[in-house]
Amino acid sequence: MRRIRCIVEYDGTRYVGWQVQPNGVSIQQRINEALFALTSESEIQAHGSGRTDSGVHAYAQVFHFDTLARIPGEKFAYALNAHLPRDIRVLWSEDAPDGFHARFSAKEKTYRYVVQTGPHARVFSSRTSLHIHTPLEDGAMEAAAAAVLGEHDFSAFMCAGSPMESTVRSVYQSQWIREGAYLIYEVTGNGFLYNMVRILVGTMLDIGMGRRPVDAMDKALDSGLRGDAGPTAPAHGLALMRVKYEDFDTMEVLSRL
Amino acid sequence: MRRIRCIVEYDGTRYVGWQVQPNGVSIQQRINEALFALTSESEIQAHGSGRTDSGVHAYAQVFHFDTLARIPGEKFAYALNAHLPRDIRVLWSEDAPDGFHARFSAKEKTYRYVVQTGPHARVFSSRTSLHIHTPLEDGAMEAAAAAVLGEHDFSAFMCAGSPMESTVRSVYQSQWIREGAYLIYEVTGNGFLYNMVRILVGTMLDIGMGRRPVDAMDKALDSGLRGDAGPTAPAHGLALMRVKYEDFDTMEVLSRL
Repeated sequence: MRRIRCIVEYDGTRYVGWQVQPNGVSIQQRINEALFALTSESEIQAHGSGRTDSGVHAYAQVFHFDTLARIPGEKFAYALNAHLPRDIRVLWSEDAPDGFHARFSAKEKTYRYVVQTGPHARVFSSRTSLHIHTPLEDGAMEAAAAAVLGEHDFSAFMCAGSPMESTVRSVYQSQWIREGAYLIYEVTGNGFLYNMVRILVGTMLDIGMGRRPVDAMDKALDSGLRGDAGPTAPAHGLALMRVKYEDFDTMEVLSRL
Repeated sequence: MRRIRCIVEYDGTRYVGWQVQPNGVSIQQRINEALFALTSESEIQAHGSGRTDSGVHAYAQVFHFDTLARIPGEKFAYALNAHLPRDIRVLWSEDAPDGFHARFSAKEKTYRYVVQTGPHARVFSSRTSLHIHTPLEDGAMEAAAAAVLGEHDFSAFMCAGSPMESTVRSVYQSQWIREGAYLIYEVTGNGFLYNMVRILVGTMLDIGMGRRPVDAMDKALDSGLRGDAGPTAPAHGLALMRVKYEDFDTMEVLSRL
C-alpha cells in the first residue's frame, strides 16, 4: 500500500460540505467516486485535513488516500480531475512520506472570510463573499480581531451540541484587511472548533455594526457562553486558504505551480 | 427630459453581448426592460460606451438614458437592480451634465484579458480566465505587448467583414502583469476595433507558445493583413475594466463606493 497526498480546490456552493452526509452530495463523496473510478479499489477513501461546512469553499484543502494503484504520485491530480466536476479540482498530488496523515499531521490552518461593503452586491464575488450594505466600523472590528489572538477556550464560539473534546485552541493570526470594497478576515490557528470562524465573524460583524460593544469579544472568550457571542455568519463568505504540515505548506507548493 | 448616466457590472457568460441581437438575450435588452418596468416610457433605451462581444464581461461599463421620471439621479442604481438579474448590477448612477454621451464623450477605455497558467484549471477563475497549460514565454509576450503602444493602423486586428471606418487607434498602455498563476494583459486606448483586444491576445499567446516569432506583432501592424495576426482569443478571458471621460472616471467613482 502507498499513501498519496493531494491539494484540492473547490467551490462549496453545490455541496453539503467536505464530509460524506446522508442528505446530499459532499466533496469527499465526489472524490471517493473518482478514486474508485480510477483504481476499482472498493475500500478506497479520501481523508481530509478536516471538515468544511455546507457551502464553505476551499482554495487549498489537503487529503490523503491509500492505494495499490501504480500511477506515478504526481499523475493522480490529472487522473482524478478527469473524473471530477469542474467545481472540484485537484491541483497537486505526490507520494506522502511515512507517517503522514492529512488530519493528524496538520499543524496550522488559515481561513479567510470575505465581506463586501458598499451599496450594491458585486457580480463576480457574489458566490464567495457576504455583501453587507450597513456601514461597518473597521476600527472596532480590528480591535475585536486582535482580542482573538493567543490561546483561549473557544466554548462560546462553537455550534451548540458539538461533540465534547478540548475546546482550547491557539490563534496565531487574526486580522481584518481592507482591499477596496472588500473587508477580509484572515485567521490562522492550530485548529478550529465546529463553526468557530463563522461565529467569530458573526460576533465581529455585530461589533462593526454597533449592535454589540467593542469588548463583546473579550466577554464571550471569558464567559465561554454561546449566548455572549454573535450569530453564525453565512457559509459562502468562508474559505479554507492554507494547511501547514511539518514538511509541507500548501501555499508554498501552489506558488510553484 | 433628463439624462442619467450609470456604471454597470456584468458577467457576460449567459448573454449574447452588450448590444440587442435577434439571436439571444443581451445586457442592453435586460437593462431596457428594467428601465421600462421602472418608467413605463416605451421609447426608453440604454446607450452604452461601446459594445462588448458575446461572453465578454464588464467590471465598469457606462451607459446613459433619457427619461421624464422624477427619481433622484443616485437612486436609479437601486431601482434598476430591483428589476435586473444578479449577474447584472448597476453600481452607480447620477444626473449627467449637459452634452454627455456614453459613447461619443468617452476618451479612454481599459480592457483586461486574464490567462491562467499551470497544469490544472483553477475553480474560482474558470468563468473569467483562459486556462493554458502549455508553458508561456512571459518575456516574449511582454516584448510583443510593448510593440502595440502608440498610434497604429490596427487593420490586421479586426474581425474580417467589420463595417468600414478609420482603423487607426492610439494605445496608451499595453502590458502583461504576472500575478502568481495568472498572466494578465492590460490595455488602454482611445478606442478599439471589433475583436481587436482578443486578436492582439491571440497573437501574443501564439508568440508566448513559440508558434510565431517575437516580431510577428510588428509584422502584422505593418502589413495590416488579418492573416499575419493570430487567432481570436476566447471571449470569457476578456473584461472591460474602466471608461474615462473628461469629467469622470469609473475607477475613481468605484473606489469611493
